[in-house]
Formats: sequence, structure tokens, C-alpha cells
Amino acid sequence: MNAPIPRVSVLPQPYLLFLGDTTEASFAKTALGLAHWAPDQCVGEMALPGATVSTGLPRITAVEAGEAGAKSLVIGVANQGGVIPASWIDALVAALDAGLHIISGLHVRLASIPALAEAAKRNNRQLIDVRTPPASIPVGTGRKRSGKRLLTVGTDCALGKKYTALALYRAFQARGVDADFRATGQTGIMIAGGGMPMDAVVSDFEAGAAEVLSPDAHAQHWDVVEGQGSIFNPSYAAVSLGLLHGSQPDVFVVCHDPTRSTILGLEGFDLPTIEEVIDMTVRLGSRTNPAIRCGGVSLNTSSMSEGEAAQLLADESARLGLPVADPVRGGAPFDALVEACLA
Amino acid sequence: MNAPIPRVSVLPQPYLLFLGDTTEASFAKTALGLAHWAPDQCVGEMALPGATVSTGLPRITAVEAGEAGAKSLVIGVANQGGVIPASWIDALVAALDAGLHIISGLHVRLASIPALAEAAKRNNRQLIDVRTPPASIPVGTGRKRSGKRLLTVGTDCALGKKYTALALYRAFQARGVDADFRATGQTGIMIAGGGMPMDAVVSDFEAGAAEVLSPDAHAQHWDVVEGQGSIFNPSYAAVSLGLLHGSQPDVFVVCHDPTRSTILGLEGFDLPTIEEVIDMTVRLGSRTNPAIRCGGVSLNTSSMSEGEAAQLLADESARLGLPVADPVRGGAPFDALVEACLA
Repeated sequence: MNAPIPRVSVLPQPYLLFLGDTTEASFAKTALGLAHWAPDQCVGEMALPGATVSTGLPRITAVEAGEAGAKSLVIGVANQGGVIPASWIDALVAALDAGLHIISGLHVRLASIPALAEAAKRNNRQLIDVRTPPASIPVGTGRKRSGKRLLTVGTDCALGKKYTALALYRAFQARGVDADFRATGQTGIMIAGGGMPMDAVVSDFEAGAAEVLSPDAHAQHWDVVEGQGSIFNPSYAAVSLGLLHGSQPDVFVVCHDPTRSTILGLEGFDLPTIEEVIDMTVRLGSRTNPAIRCGGVSLNTSSMSEGEAAQLLADESARLGLPVADPVRGGAPFDALVEACLA
Repeated sequence: MNAPIPRVSVLPQPYLLFLGDTTEASFAKTALGLAHWAPDQCVGEMALPGATVSTGLPRITAVEAGEAGAKSLVIGVANQGGVIPASWIDALVAALDAGLHIISGLHVRLASIPALAEAAKRNNRQLIDVRTPPASIPVGTGRKRSGKRLLTVGTDCALGKKYTALALYRAFQARGVDADFRATGQTGIMIAGGGMPMDAVVSDFEAGAAEVLSPDAHAQHWDVVEGQGSIFNPSYAAVSLGLLHGSQPDVFVVCHDPTRSTILGLEGFDLPTIEEVIDMTVRLGSRTNPAIRCGGVSLNTSSMSEGEAAQLLADESARLGLPVADPVRGGAPFDALVEACLA
């Protein structure tokens, strides 16, 4: 039923998902996200002894993955510090020896690890850091581009902007709308097979990077752009505003976690209200698209019962006068959100 | 009369100002700015045959500069493309041979030019690119810091934010106020002897870089922070918002050129009004400093007669209900602006 995520760039797919020796599902978000959103691009998973997390895909070796057509091993786990522990090196070298490229979204550069650099050279394989932006990103121009764009924005970080964008993209495809998912973070880039790591771009080029990400398209085409951070987040607002200006959305969807009251990791900062985010996004976004409008709201109701969630979605929709849905739950509220975005 | 600009960092001063073969004063803004704002840190100027621009400082050789105590040659000119032409290389190598370091704010890295890299190594001298941010900038935290801060903001780029910040800093010093000038662009960094090249910082760390630039200080101390870009500039707003959030100003001054009607280089974009900039700066800046207020307005009246300028300053002050001054002209309007900022 689900349309595949488009591969807009050059990551060598399909993937073998590497889980390391992870015992915490929250550290394996990249692998789990890939297995969920791009299962047709994942031939299996590989783990070290001690790992207890699984994506549900077949557990295979690097050699078996290569025989099954895999082109790359994706490091599907992040540990604290974003480093590669010594205990992973032998397995990663074996993957290179089996003919796979390695793809990483960690902070550490793969090529900075001598054993990996040497094995990659010996096997003529690539070490791909998706956090590294492309060279020669231009300064933004603000020029209005053809085609239509949707951006997910948020009251904070890490509350569903990627998931919402992917769900809307899938729903657009299911309705026969020509659309692309435009990834702006590491996991999204791996899912899409390409994109722009917006938080790693030099700030002078931030809007320009977003312009490159969603180029001119035909009039009925939609780019569904993964949002980053929040214009109200005192750490990351620069990323969010450059992305808003450069993606010049026609429609935005506000993503929110109703159980969160303060900015993640910054206890002195209250979360903005949904209305504040709508108002400020319209005011700032109208600089590059005067026709910008809010298509609705995406709520993360994962901590609620089905009845509680349905009530909250209905109450919030009535209060705001907008469609409000949880894309994980789908159903009629999500259909209403999709229709409002496309209207 | 003028207090020296504080040297907050490590650029080796004093300087020899290098003018290349420039015939356009607008390309020599760095040299002219240094001669104007940091004359006590400039022992002279050096130029190639054909140059017609002068800072008014003595024209000397690199050897003479070294004998006069100069520690560095500053490339005081920018040409189109930000490169170093081949015709400059011999003179720059000679400066390294004379014992001077070289400081550049150009896009091109000095060390990427083999003749310079080799001469620097041979003489054990540094090649300093002030556009290169320091390593290990932290993510912003939004934590309120002690001391007071002023930020210059603008309706656009390149209309007096550096000049206004330096003039306010000097005026604070003249009134016995303990203050530092905090530089955020190449010329400002050379004037101050240190600072943070905000437009070259990776966007995820933009607010954090501004936090590093103006650290905790005693309660009566003022940091006067050089602004960058404009939150209404569709190319550079990410830089401006990160700087606003991270510098958490108590007071801001809006810089404006009354003869400019569209964003520099982007003809489809009207300049925002001064009132729009005040309103948006208060709304966004209150996220990290709820007490933020506008201290007044700095107008560039260089194209007007003295009478016209005085009339415009008075009219705008009455219209906005705020002090409005041209810091180049100074006088009573500027005194009123200074007093309002310190009030």
C-alpha cells in the first residue's frame, strides 16, 4: 500500500542496518526509522553479541547482505557522544571487506578512524558522513520557485516533525499527488537516500541550503519538507528560520507534544503555545511566501489511550479551528489534515 | 580623546595595513576601518605600484614596519571573489620573511596558497584567517548571563551596524562606563583584536557562538555587540536570529539607511520599516531576555546636507518617540541616544 520514499540523491541503496551492541531502543532510532519508512531498501540487520534491540528484519552477516544485493552498511545506532566504540571496528572493517560502503550520521567522521580509512581504501569503498553538507552551497536569494511546498514546524525539537512529514508525503502519494519528501536530518536523509543536513550548514548559507533542497518543480508538484528545531528554541532557532525562509512553504503543519511543557533540555524555557507558533511562522514565513498558511496541527498522543487521544484531537481542533491529527493513529482526523493541506 | 578598542583576543598587534593594488576605496573598507577605529594599532600602510587608495598612515615597507614594532600584516582590501591575486604573492612572502604574521578576512584560506604556506613555515609565522571560527563552539543554552548587553540590529545588511556599535562603545567609555566592543564580522574582529565570525559558524551552534562572545560580567558592565544582517533579510536571517538569541541584549539600536528602499542585492524585497524591526526584535529577543527594549535608532545620513540630516533626525525622533541619531555626525541627537541606551 505504501509508496516508496523517493531517492532524490546518491546514497548507495539498499542497506544493511547495523545495530552495534545496543540494548536501548531509543539509541537505535535510525535503524528503526529506516526499517519502518524504507523497508524495501533494507535487506536485513546486523548486530554484535549482547545487542537486544531488533528491527524485525532478518539478522544476517555482511557477506550475506552483499549476496542479497546490499550496497551499504548503515550505522543505525547513536550512542552518547556520537562516537564509534572500538568494539565496533572489526565488524565495520569486515563489512568493507565484504564490499559494502558505510553510511553514518554520527558526529565523528568515519574517515578519521584509521582502521576504517585503510579498509575503505583497500576495498575501494566509500565512507559517507550524511552530516557533511555538500560543497558550494549558494547564499539564499529568496527567489520564488515554482511548485508547492509544505514544511513541518514545531513547538520544540524531537516531537514528530520528521514522522509527520513522511506521513503527509505518503498520504499525498496515496491520493495521486506528485510529491517528494525533502529530508533535512540524518535519519530522514538515509530514508530518502539524499537531502540536506540543515543543522550542519554554515549559517550564512542556511537559507540557500533550503533553497537547493526544494528546487523548481511543476505547478502541481509538492515538496514535503522535514522541519528542524523551532523558532522558539533558544539553541536552534537559527536553523529553523533559515529553513523557513529558504523552503518558502505554501503550507505548514505545527507539530506538538501535549505532554511537554518546557523546551527539551532547557528547563527555564516554557514551550510556546500552538497559536504562538502559528502566528510567528506566518509573520516570518510571509517574508519569502506572502501566501503562507497553516494547514493544521500534528499532535503526538503516544502516551494516551485511544479514547483520550480522540477527545484531545477533537477538543484542540474545535479550539483552534484547524484540523488536528496524530499521524501515527491516522483515521478521519488525519484525512482531514491531509485534505486541508492540499486545499 | 578616544579610548582604544579593547583587545579581547589574540590577534598579533600592531598591524601593517596592506592595500594591494586597489584603486577603489570601497574595496579597502577593512584598511580604512582599522585606520579609523584602531589607529594606535596600525604602524603604517603598504601598497603595490598602481594603488591609488590611502589610509593616510605612513607608507612603509614590511621591513620598516617590523622595525617599528608591527607584528602582523593585515590584508586590508577585498576584491571581487574574495581571492588573493597572484600579483600580491611576492609582497606577502616578503612580509613573512620580514617576520610579520599575515591576517586575512577573505574567503580563501591563506594556507591554501602554497607559496604563503611555505614562507610561513620557513619563518615560523602564522597565517590567520579571521573568518575561521574557533573549534568546539557549544550549543546555546539560553542561560541568562550577568552584566548588560547592547546589540545593533538593522533593516538590512551593510548600513552601519558595526560603525554604530563602535561609536556607542566609545561613547560609553567616554562616560566612564566599563564596556567591551564584541566583534562579529571580519573587520570588527581585526579592530577589536578578536571576536566571533558569526556568519561562518555552523548553524546548529549559532546561538552558542554568540553566548561565548559575550560571557558573564559584573552587573554594571556593558558588552556592545556588533550586529549582522537582518531578521528580515531572506538570505541571512539565520545569522541575525542566532545572534539575537545568543547575545540576549537588554537594549538594541536599529540601524537604517533612509535612502534604501529594497534589500541589498534582492530587488523584489522591500526594506522593512523601522517599526517592524523594533516589533519583531522585541518579540524574538524576549525569548532569551524578557526585558529587551529599543534604545533608539541610528540613521546613515551621509548623502544629506547638514540641515537636511538634522531635520530628518528630528522628524524621525518625533514620529517614533525614540532618540534618532547619526553617529557619524554625533552631537546632541547622538548624546540622547547614548543616554537612552544607558538609562
